[in-house]
Amino acid sequence: MNQVHAYINQKRRKYLKWLEKVCNQPSVSAQNRGMEEMFLILKELFESAGASTQRIETAGYPVLIAEFQGESKSTLAFYNHYDVQPEDPIDEWETNPFETTYTEDLIVARGAADNKGNIIARLAAVDAYQNVYGKLPVGIKFIIEGEEEVGSPHLELLAREHTSEIQADAILWEGGLREYNNKRLHVGLGVKGIAYIELIAKGAKNDLHSSEAAIIENPAWELTWALATLKSKDEKVLIEGFYDKVKPLTEQSKRFIETLEFDEEYTKANYEIDEFINGVSGYDLKKRLIAEPTCTICGIKSGYIEQGAKTVLPAKATAKLDFRLVPGQSPEHIVELLRKHLDKHGFEHIEIKSLNHLEPYNTDPDHPFVKLVLDAVDEVYEEQPIIYSNLAGSSPMYKLLSNCPMPAVQIGVANTNSKFHAPNENITVDDFIQGTKVVATIIKKFKA
Amino acid sequence: MNQVHAYINQKRRKYLKWLEKVCNQPSVSAQNRGMEEMFLILKELFESAGASTQRIETAGYPVLIAEFQGESKSTLAFYNHYDVQPEDPIDEWETNPFETTYTEDLIVARGAADNKGNIIARLAAVDAYQNVYGKLPVGIKFIIEGEEEVGSPHLELLAREHTSEIQADAILWEGGLREYNNKRLHVGLGVKGIAYIELIAKGAKNDLHSSEAAIIENPAWELTWALATLKSKDEKVLIEGFYDKVKPLTEQSKRFIETLEFDEEYTKANYEIDEFINGVSGYDLKKRLIAEPTCTICGIKSGYIEQGAKTVLPAKATAKLDFRLVPGQSPEHIVELLRKHLDKHGFEHIEIKSLNHLEPYNTDPDHPFVKLVLDAVDEVYEEQPIIYSNLAGSSPMYKLLSNCPMPAVQIGVANTNSKFHAPNENITVDDFIQGTKVVATIIKKFKA
Repeated sequence: MNQVHAYINQKRRKYLKWLEKVCNQPSVSAQNRGMEEMFLILKELFESAGASTQRIETAGYPVLIAEFQGESKSTLAFYNHYDVQPEDPIDEWETNPFETTYTEDLIVARGAADNKGNIIARLAAVDAYQNVYGKLPVGIKFIIEGEEEVGSPHLELLAREHTSEIQADAILWEGGLREYNNKRLHVGLGVKGIAYIELIAKGAKNDLHSSEAAIIENPAWELTWALATLKSKDEKVLIEGFYDKVKPLTEQSKRFIETLEFDEEYTKANYEIDEFINGVSGYDLKKRLIAEPTCTICGIKSGYIEQGAKTVLPAKATAKLDFRLVPGQSPEHIVELLRKHLDKHGFEHIEIKSLNHLEPYNTDPDHPFVKLVLDAVDEVYEEQPIIYSNLAGSSPMYKLLSNCPMPAVQIGVANTNSKFHAPNENITVDDFIQGTKVVATIIKKFKA
Repeated sequence: MNQVHAYINQKRRKYLKWLEKVCNQPSVSAQNRGMEEMFLILKELFESAGASTQRIETAGYPVLIAEFQGESKSTLAFYNHYDVQPEDPIDEWETNPFETTYTEDLIVARGAADNKGNIIARLAAVDAYQNVYGKLPVGIKFIIEGEEEVGSPHLELLAREHTSEIQADAILWEGGLREYNNKRLHVGLGVKGIAYIELIAKGAKNDLHSSEAAIIENPAWELTWALATLKSKDEKVLIEGFYDKVKPLTEQSKRFIETLEFDEEYTKANYEIDEFINGVSGYDLKKRLIAEPTCTICGIKSGYIEQGAKTVLPAKATAKLDFRLVPGQSPEHIVELLRKHLDKHGFEHIEIKSLNHLEPYNTDPDHPFVKLVLDAVDEVYEEQPIIYSNLAGSSPMYKLLSNCPMPAVQIGVANTNSKFHAPNENITVDDFIQGTKVVATIIKKFKA
């Protein structure tokens, strides 16, 4: 493998030029800026590296499929996206967001971290491997969509209608990063799901004077009473059956939780809190974050919410709730359980409106592909990785993977200081090069 | 008495001219418009009717005390105010708000109902009495402040520092009205008090991403749990001691409750509700409205309250609550009980902020002055009065009366269609004349 790594070192300027080229092209899906130009630049770049490409149209922006032939029939896939977030607020950029700039050891550009850096690192790994060995040991397939930053609205249909173009034996997802300070690489095996709903309680037709509260029902009370039945003060969700389908943690999952880094004192000071929920710390805290489902009030609104006093009996009360779901749970099932729970407790009149559902998606921590990636990480990086069997956030991974099942691992070239979606987005040159090397190592091991 | 009533009929144009004069003078305390001019017009008018006047300065607008000598040492007082609400929205007025206009049987002007009509009707009653009988049987004292529409901020101090100027044997309060349709006169004997507070729960320093809810406490939950301990689903306030000081209803109070008019079917249709709280109707419903204290969520706010989904863990949650209090209860005591209750239930961290407190004030329904006024009402009006031992709203009556204790009854010349504080404020000519007559009758009976 050292030959390929040496080649990557030697050709770093070539690969950085590739990165500059794609970062300098704006491709803002939310604003329909430069999307076609970006698609064509990538198509040409992949073809120049020996790929055959396919353009799959969607109702939105097209998807680029770029395939490299390999010696075996096995195929490794990479999921990426060619769109970026808008650059606002433009005043806070120290450089032109669409003119790649080097500042000390940083590469600064919109998209460098999310995720043009990953596209190019992965392409560079393939290119280096081909140039050193003449051919690839396995087939490589890039799936690059143009709508990730607007919620991947067509990804599920794509996976259903183009299963054969998408399906591979394993996939590297985009979105990974490295700790900025101690350099530990994050390896992600899945994401929590989410059920985001709104509860709506209604009273009289209009807001009334609060003196009428003596005789007219108040939806703010009804909503309060209903919410209070959902979770106990010790943070247990009280919806009947809520935890029933949660898959128990494997020994491997528990070991992965132990790898997690969490600076409790720093977080407490930073958030100005005295302690964490239920006073947890150490393993229990990390387990809550990774492996336990939640029920969160994200917003409540009723009646008069401005400064001072107004004597109002509200006509309506609403709460926005998100449930973060772990493997085994599904948003639709949770909403069904919630409906039953409310009915059983006398809140039949409270309406549930579903606003956003994302299924959880997780790769079995005991799958051989996970071990393969971790071995490659071990070869390339000196620092022990941090392994998230379940990232606390959510992503649309299931949209692709529930239709084209394959083990998926998230790693990438960004770091915890990369300023995702923000001004002065950046990656380090070293992370870009290391990230290229680890992909080359994964390709090599995938053959074996 | 018929002589005085006949005189009032005969001099109606004179008294309407007085009313026009005071209504045509803007006197908007909130905007400091015409206040001094108004004070001087009234001073001159009262003096021309034979009163000796006093100007009592306050930190805001001056108070006019106008006294008429009587044959006995007894004194009857009238509470009124010479300020009015701003006329906004001006576009919705069909006439000039400060140019009294007659439309069919209506007198339309800002202040006609609230409460320049009452000032002039009362002055006219005194004037008619004097002109018919040569002298008054009892002393009459007008207390006319200029800050009622901005919350009477100096009334309490006035009553404390000028007790001898204020004190009388009984007082007629402003603010009464008559049913527009069936003409029944409202007679008020008191008002509920109010404790308006804000509950504030705080979490982390800033809003966080809701994935952090697995480990960081959510003030929206804490507030919800706390609120749910305050009132049961059958609308009983659960704060320990909340009902302990409530004075039991006398037989007279119960009879007064029975006089109340409440069109249940109309109200249900108008508010689009199926039933009232706990399914109450009839006497029980009227009793709740008049005689029972309440605990009302007037507003709740936390986290994300706009359209759609945002995955936020709120840093703060607030609720605005009003407690409507009945005789025996006091706002300060209720807030103390609330603090104890929250502490006892583990919500020591929730802050209570008092926004507005008004003590309840009530005249004993069995007091002879109440009977005297009701007898006078019976002589002048053909329709049975509606007697509120406790108006469901609140007012600053206690600010004056707790320092200068005297029986107080609210009657007035407005009606339920008078558009208080709104465009096209009005009273009827007939109500103005009847309202003058009833005051003359009260003066007459007060002597006896």
